[in-house]
Amino acid sequence: MAANNNLQMFQYIKRDTRDFINIDPLQTAGLLTEAARDALIEWGDGYSVCDYCNGALDQVKKPPIQEFVHKALPEFLGTDAARVMNGARESKFAVMHTLAGAAKNKTSNAASNSANKTDAADYVVMDAWAHYSSKVAAERAGLEIVQTEKPEKEIMPEDFQNAIETGIEKYGKKPILTLLTYPDGNYGNLADAKKIAALSHEYEIPILLNGAYSVGRMPVNAKEFGVDYIVGSGHKSMSACGPVGVLGVNGEEAAEQLFRKSAYNKVKEVELLGCTSRGAPIMTLMASFPEVVERTKPDVWEKEVEHARHFVSRLEETGKFKLFGQNPHNHDVMFFEAPGFFNISERAKRGRYFLYDELKERKIHGIKPGLTKNFKMSTYGLSIETIDTVADSFIDILKKYDEI
Amino acid sequence: MAANNNLQMFQYIKRDTRDFINIDPLQTAGLLTEAARDALIEWGDGYSVCDYCNGALDQVKKPPIQEFVHKALPEFLGTDAARVMNGARESKFAVMHTLAGAAKNKTSNAASNSANKTDAADYVVMDAWAHYSSKVAAERAGLEIVQTEKPEKEIMPEDFQNAIETGIEKYGKKPILTLLTYPDGNYGNLADAKKIAALSHEYEIPILLNGAYSVGRMPVNAKEFGVDYIVGSGHKSMSACGPVGVLGVNGEEAAEQLFRKSAYNKVKEVELLGCTSRGAPIMTLMASFPEVVERTKPDVWEKEVEHARHFVSRLEETGKFKLFGQNPHNHDVMFFEAPGFFNISERAKRGRYFLYDELKERKIHGIKPGLTKNFKMSTYGLSIETIDTVADSFIDILKKYDEI
Repeated sequence: MAANNNLQMFQYIKRDTRDFINIDPLQTAGLLTEAARDALIEWGDGYSVCDYCNGALDQVKKPPIQEFVHKALPEFLGTDAARVMNGARESKFAVMHTLAGAAKNKTSNAASNSANKTDAADYVVMDAWAHYSSKVAAERAGLEIVQTEKPEKEIMPEDFQNAIETGIEKYGKKPILTLLTYPDGNYGNLADAKKIAALSHEYEIPILLNGAYSVGRMPVNAKEFGVDYIVGSGHKSMSACGPVGVLGVNGEEAAEQLFRKSAYNKVKEVELLGCTSRGAPIMTLMASFPEVVERTKPDVWEKEVEHARHFVSRLEETGKFKLFGQNPHNHDVMFFEAPGFFNISERAKRGRYFLYDELKERKIHGIKPGLTKNFKMSTYGLSIETIDTVADSFIDILKKYDEI
Repeated sequence: MAANNNLQMFQYIKRDTRDFINIDPLQTAGLLTEAARDALIEWGDGYSVCDYCNGALDQVKKPPIQEFVHKALPEFLGTDAARVMNGARESKFAVMHTLAGAAKNKTSNAASNSANKTDAADYVVMDAWAHYSSKVAAERAGLEIVQTEKPEKEIMPEDFQNAIETGIEKYGKKPILTLLTYPDGNYGNLADAKKIAALSHEYEIPILLNGAYSVGRMPVNAKEFGVDYIVGSGHKSMSACGPVGVLGVNGEEAAEQLFRKSAYNKVKEVELLGCTSRGAPIMTLMASFPEVVERTKPDVWEKEVEHARHFVSRLEETGKFKLFGQNPHNHDVMFFEAPGFFNISERAKRGRYFLYDELKERKIHGIKPGLTKNFKMSTYGLSIETIDTVADSFIDILKKYDEI
C-alpha cells in the first residue's frame, strides 16, 4: 500500500473521554463492569468462544452460553425464548423480516387461490418517537411505516389506535406489527406498555417493545406487559462490549417462526445467519449479567429515578431549564430546553460550541457539540455527588456568562 | 430472578485453551496483535466510538475511522468503496439482499408492463465448497441456490459455467450473483478467481468473492481479480475482536445501490441498518491493520505457504496421512485423511475422542472432538518450531498406539 507509513495512525489511539463524567444516554449504562472487563481481556481473541462450539452457538455448554440463552435470559426478559444478537436494531430487523416474509407468503397463496389479490404494501405502526433504527429496519424489510401523532408527553393507547385505524384505511389491511419504544431515547418518556399491548392484541396484531433504553436499566418484563417481542441493547444498557443485543419472543409458534432453521443446515437459524455475537461481546454481556439483574430490581431503579429527579430539581431551581415530557420524570434519559445556554451561544466567541468547550474543561462529556438550546442527557449510574457536580457545572457556566 | 444465586457462573470464566497451540482454521489468524489488545482495553466500553460520532460511523474523523473506511480499506481490498460490517456473513447477506430487491423490482415493473411475468425464483450460483453462511445468507434473502459440481481439487471455471447453464435451464433466467469461496474453509483450495470472474462477466453476472480465509491472511485484490464484491472476516483473518467483517465493492452504481441511504434519515445506510461495528471490534480491526497489511505481502505469505508445505511433508513421510485437494498446497488451511488415527479410535478406551484427549495433553487445540479419520487444521502464524512440535505430536501419538 502506498500509505503504509501512515498506517500507524490506526494504533494506540487514546480515548480522551474515558475518565470524563459521561452523560450521553448512549454511554451511561454501557460502561463495562469489572467482571466484563475481565471477560473482555480473557475472550478478546477473534472467535474465542468457537473453540467450544459443536455447531450451534446457543448450545455451547462451557462457557455456559446454553444456560444463559435458554434459561437466564428468557427468565430475565419474561419470554418463552431468547437469543443473543448483534444489537437491538438487528433484532428488530429479524422480527420484521420474518413477519414480512410470512405476510408475503400468505398474500401470494391467497392470490393464487382467488382474484382478491391486494398489491398494497405491508406496514408497521410505530410510536412517534421511534428510534431511526426501527424505521431503517422496517425499510430494509420492505415494510412501510405509519407513526402515531406526536403527543404532549407520553404516547397514549389512543395514539396507537388512531395510527392503526389510519393504516387500515390507507392500506386496506392491518399492520403486521406494532412497535413501542420504551422509553424513547430522546425524552425518556414511559408509555403504558401494558395498555398499548392489550390494544394491539385487540386488533390481533403482534407487538414489539424496543427496550434499548430499558432492558438492563430498569425492571421490564415482556410477559407482564403482554408483549410478543422484546429487544434490548447490550452496549447501550447491559454493560457489554458492543455490538451485542438481546431478542426475546413469547409464544411457541412465534418463536419457531422467528428462529426457523435453515433448509441447508439443520442447526443453523436463518434470521441469525447461523451465528451472531460470539467473542468478547457475548462473554462481556454474560459477565455483567449478575450486576444487571441486581440493578434492574425495583428498589435499585427507584434510586436512579430519584437521582434523575434530583438533577431536574437542581436545574429547575435556576429558572433557566425546562424538562420536556413526563415531570416528575420516571427515567434517567432527560431532554432539556435551556434558554440560558442559548442566549450565551449568541454572543460567545465559539458560538454554539461554547457549551461543549466549557463542559470539556470540566471533564464532562455527552452533550453533542453545537447543541445549547435543547439537549438530551442521562444520569444513569452516577452517584448523587457526581450528579451535583454536573448540576453545579451547568449553573457555573450560566453564572460565568452572567445568565444568572 | 429465581436463579440469582447461580448467576456467578457467568463471570470470571477462564479460557483453558488460551495458552495452547491452536490449529483451528477459525482461530489462527484471529489472535489479537499487541496493538489490538491495547485498543480492546481502551475502547471496550459499550459504544465508546459513538462519543465521537455526528451521525455516520464511517465519517468519524477522530479516531480516524473515515480515513480507514474510505481510504485504507478500499485500497487494501482493491475496491472503489468499502465498509466495516458485523461479519463476512452479514456482508454477503447485504449484497444478496440488495440484488434480490433490485431483481424483484425489475420483475414487478416488467410484469406491470407486459404479460411476460416470470414467477421463477431468483437464485445465486455458488461453488461446491461454499460456506454454510453463504447458503443461509441466500436463504434469508429469499434466493435459491445452484452449486457447482464437486471437483477433484479446485473449482474450475468450467464448473461455474456448467452451474450457470444448469441454472438458466431450470429458472429460465440468469442468476443474480455468482459466489466464489476463496479459499474454501475445509480444504484450503484456491481456484483461479480471475478466470471465474471473467466467465461470470461474460454472462453479465456480478461476482462476489468470499475471502473469509484470504483477506488478512494472503495477498488478494478485488480489482486484480476483476470481482465486483469482496468480503472478509475480521475475527477469522484480520486479528480483530469479533464480530466484525469488511465489505468492498467495485463500480459506482453497485456501490450506490449497496450503500443506498434511508428514506427516513439521509445519512444512514439501509443495508447497514444505519450503523454496524462501533466499539472494540472496529478499533481492534484498525489497530491490527498495519500488521495485517505487512503479513499479506507476497513474500510474507510465501513463508506461510512454505510452512504449511513443510507440515504436509512431515506428515506424508509417515505414510499415515493424505492431504486432500491441491498438493503442493497453497494455503494454511489443510484437510487430512488419517487412517492411522482412525485405526486407533476403533480400539482406544475413549474411542474417537482419544485424539482430542491426546492433543489436549500436549496443549494442542483445534481439531474438533471426535474427529480422527478426517480433519481440517491450519498452521497460520505458527513458527516452524511450533509446527514441528505439532507434527512430532501427531507422530508420537501414532507411535504410542503402535501405528508406526
